[in-house]
Amino acid sequence: MWSSDKPPRSDSMRRRIITSILYCSGDMTQLHKHMQKQPFPVQLVEWSLRGVARVILANNPLSGALILGALLMASPWQALLGVLGLLASTLTAIIIGQDSEEVAGGLHGFNGMLVALLIGVFSSAGDWYWWLLLPVCLTAATCTFLFSGLAPLLDRWDLPVSVFPFNMMILMYLSCTGTDNAFFPHHPALPPGAPEHSNSTQLDISQLLQGVPLGVGQIYACGELWPSVLILAAVFIYSPLLCAHALLGSGVGMLAGLSVAVRPSSLYSGLSGFNGALGCMAVGGLFFTFSWRTHLFSIASAFLSAYSDIALSNLLGKMGLPACSWAATLTATLMLLLTARNLSSYRIPIDRVASPEQNLRAHSHWTGGNTDSTDV
Amino acid sequence: MWSSDKPPRSDSMRRRIITSILYCSGDMTQLHKHMQKQPFPVQLVEWSLRGVARVILANNPLSGALILGALLMASPWQALLGVLGLLASTLTAIIIGQDSEEVAGGLHGFNGMLVALLIGVFSSAGDWYWWLLLPVCLTAATCTFLFSGLAPLLDRWDLPVSVFPFNMMILMYLSCTGTDNAFFPHHPALPPGAPEHSNSTQLDISQLLQGVPLGVGQIYACGELWPSVLILAAVFIYSPLLCAHALLGSGVGMLAGLSVAVRPSSLYSGLSGFNGALGCMAVGGLFFTFSWRTHLFSIASAFLSAYSDIALSNLLGKMGLPACSWAATLTATLMLLLTARNLSSYRIPIDRVASPEQNLRAHSHWTGGNTDSTDV
Amino acid sequence: MWSSDKPPRSDSMRRRIITSILYCSGDMTQLHKHMQKQPFPVQLVEWSLRGVARVILANNPLSGALILGALLMASPWQALLGVLGLLASTLTAIIIGQDSEEVAGGLHGFNGMLVALLIGVFSSAGDWYWWLLLPVCLTAATCTFLFSGLAPLLDRWDLPVSVFPFNMMILMYLSCTGTDNAFFPHHPALPPGAPEHSNSTQLDISQLLQGVPLGVGQIYACGELWPSVLILAAVFIYSPLLCAHALLGSGVGMLAGLSVAVRPSSLYSGLSGFNGALGCMAVGGLFFTFSWRTHLFSIASAFLSAYSDIALSNLLGKMGLPACSWAATLTATLMLLLTARNLSSYRIPIDRVASPEQNLRAHSHWTGGNTDSTDV
Repeated sequence: MWSSDKPPRSDSMRRRIITSILYCSGDMTQLHKHMQKQPFPVQLVEWSLRGVARVILANNPLSGALILGALLMASPWQALLGVLGLLASTLTAIIIGQDSEEVAGGLHGFNGMLVALLIGVFSSAGDWYWWLLLPVCLTAATCTFLFSGLAPLLDRWDLPVSVFPFNMMILMYLSCTGTDNAFFPHHPALPPGAPEHSNSTQLDISQLLQGVPLGVGQIYACGELWPSVLILAAVFIYSPLLCAHALLGSGVGMLAGLSVAVRPSSLYSGLSGFNGALGCMAVGGLFFTFSWRTHLFSIASAFLSAYSDIALSNLLGKMGLPACSWAATLTATLMLLLTARNLSSYRIPIDRVASPEQNLRAHSHWTGGNTDSTDV
Repeated sequence: MWSSDKPPRSDSMRRRIITSILYCSGDMTQLHKHMQKQPFPVQLVEWSLRGVARVILANNPLSGALILGALLMASPWQALLGVLGLLASTLTAIIIGQDSEEVAGGLHGFNGMLVALLIGVFSSAGDWYWWLLLPVCLTAATCTFLFSGLAPLLDRWDLPVSVFPFNMMILMYLSCTGTDNAFFPHHPALPPGAPEHSNSTQLDISQLLQGVPLGVGQIYACGELWPSVLILAAVFIYSPLLCAHALLGSGVGMLAGLSVAVRPSSLYSGLSGFNGALGCMAVGGLFFTFSWRTHLFSIASAFLSAYSDIALSNLLGKMGLPACSWAATLTATLMLLLTARNLSSYRIPIDRVASPEQNLRAHSHWTGGNTDSTDV
Repeated sequence: MWSSDKPPRSDSMRRRIITSILYCSGDMTQLHKHMQKQPFPVQLVEWSLRGVARVILANNPLSGALILGALLMASPWQALLGVLGLLASTLTAIIIGQDSEEVAGGLHGFNGMLVALLIGVFSSAGDWYWWLLLPVCLTAATCTFLFSGLAPLLDRWDLPVSVFPFNMMILMYLSCTGTDNAFFPHHPALPPGAPEHSNSTQLDISQLLQGVPLGVGQIYACGELWPSVLILAAVFIYSPLLCAHALLGSGVGMLAGLSVAVRPSSLYSGLSGFNGALGCMAVGGLFFTFSWRTHLFSIASAFLSAYSDIALSNLLGKMGLPACSWAATLTATLMLLLTARNLSSYRIPIDRVASPEQNLRAHSHWTGGNTDSTDV
């Protein structure tokens, strides 16, 4: 629309800048249309970059590229594993004949990428242990099967599959190979409630503050500050609203962790924040139209995600397993199921979900008719 | 109906007594209608008292008041926690806009109350530890979210949400705060299969007999005899049939416990009986029309509930967690799903469930047309 | 069809042999029709023999008889328990009024039989411990309730109940009675990842090869070679294609076990193969029309079943519980849910499933119309 009307000459430059910014932000549907005429490898790159961004609920190839850069900066080996997982699951989806529109949206990439990243993080065999490529490819491919199988189950209630396949596969991989496996050894996960031997009982405020952006980085299993900031910037490109909720949720997760006295290292590393961030982002803007009500609701969702994560981590930690993003996934699914009038009226049907800003704009067009989408 | 026809003068007194007894027993729908014109706080009291009674499958404010009295008698601190949980979850339901008819029926109070009672029982910080009010309010409020989210899932098969939210939240709270948490410490749950060091291997018959009414009291986490008897009386007011099934189920639970040699203290305290009681009550009269077939069926349900409870308690006990009423809830849900002709024909659709006596009276009106309610 | 046209005299003998072979193989629907006029005990025998074969996904009374012989050969006590469980659950189904066509197909027998066999295998009280008959009857009867309750849940997605009831009941029985129970003691299950003290680190090739047919026998908890071969023969009678997939799947399971270095005794005994065998059989021919695509797909399914089994065994093994056939059941259910075009088009609707050979023949008649059976 905005590209068709002719601007007066003086504003031309400013308008062009705004135009290109608008072009790069949000879902970049224009690029998507443009890409459909390109050869397959070029298209695959776009699909994969969208898949990278999908992990953090964004749907923008530019964000994906930025995040990939951040991962490369943090650890090239991890970035390699991630890309391999991404490709393995996307190609599996193409081979078994998943819906091509879904594949093009990167929906069959992010689970594979996440499982590959986590396999890399938990491996105790060190970087560049090439045998790891085998389980990475296999588990990533299996994620596509799980995605395809869970879709008809969740579809009945208009729920997204989100990261259920990743969460299942990483638990399966880690419990299949034990901690002292001969071929694929890995570190056991440490529950957040485990006691820690440290000299000071004082919490370090600056490290706590660092934990907030790190919580966003931990969504990609990345525990370094600058890559985390870059990831935040990538989310900002997609949607400033989503970026704000990511930070807010991570902060809420930290508060939740403080309130039940989890071990300090869990707070400092951002591990206690990333579920809160995901839970907050899903509700605040993405699956619900933004308003002050959904804003409060997203804070509640962040708290619930964070507390559930501590509970699940303590439970699974007894068997040496991590809770990954089970807590945020389950909480977001619960929130999408809510039938309470004051919240469900803001619910956006899954097939209409776009970036929060676009959701806001689109809201006025269909308000009224679709309030009962959850209780079909 | 019975209030409109004029009795002859001589029978007047007797009839008035019967009338007032009938008025107080069952669902007290007349009071409910009368209450709708009252101011909000008065209505809230009625809703809350119904919520108190809902825990034990009754729907009668008088029963609720009696049970609240029993809890006060057993422990004022526990009663305070229970009321707080009740109010927190009911008010949350009103705020997020749950169906007002459900709120008025007390459906959004009992999960909150139960979770509050259990938090109090498991806390090892002693009575009047005021910090406990914080998690009590938060978990109770979350129960309403879970209720609202689980409803559309279970609705597909015409199943009630029952106490699933409570069971989830208490497990979450207990695993979130560990046993030796700095702020919210709690006792670990002892599995019924754990060996016990006692001098005598002989079972005490009188204590076993006491365990039967205690099993009914344990539904409210109450381990004292007289309050338990008061709770039984409250159920009797609602429905004598339900009261008989409660005792029967508790006895069956004890038998089941004896048959697999659980530790004696589990039998004496009534802990091995309360799941049996709930499982027996749900099938015998409430969700199924009473008949000799459903009576046998309710005994089978009580046995299954009791054995599942022992199994789940042993499993969860290994992580220091209690099995709460998972067993009875799952068993009752399973029984409601049964498609076997000889049982499902007695099934009462969820929106028509009333007190067992009313179910019996109503049965003749709709028999025949609604036998296939489970396999829609 | 082939029985109605008159053959020329010279071919008569050969044709009669083929006819009788064809009569005995496959689903033996002709015998089924013939049986409907027989007295109840004779019919019950046919239903039960079908139930015996159903465990290994076959539906043929002759296969059932052969398998029963194999079990008797391996251990008369085990065979007795199996028959008792079979009868208990079939009779329960008749009493509670399950669909008579399902009962006649043996669908209400195999879960009861399996749970009885496993109770026998795990019992540490030795053979001919008569008290065991009590839990065997009760758990087998409960399997029918679970079957009846799970059916409407799974029906929504056109999924079979398969062995979910068995898997639930055996876990419940084993966790209800602990390992050192006073009345019903049992061996704890050893996870496949547990370290093993043996002098040689070398694997014995001949024992590995023996493990492949043993993997098929382990479906009936039978760990001896010749009975396992007999069970394979019984599957061959029903369907040579299914038999080939059973061996293939068991081999795949062994490969999976080797790749994550499970303990050798798990490989030798066939325990690492039986989930692979079941997963391979379900996809390769039974629930999907046979073709080279579904053949590759069945190998993928076998690998996924085998790896999931190792993961679940390690997890449940920490609590002393076996993973039974959870892995294969869940994997097969997942595969049936797949919506990916290239696989779901081969899916056979549950009510049309017959022997693989008949599925192939029938395929041409309904191809085209029923490809979207999974996403109704």
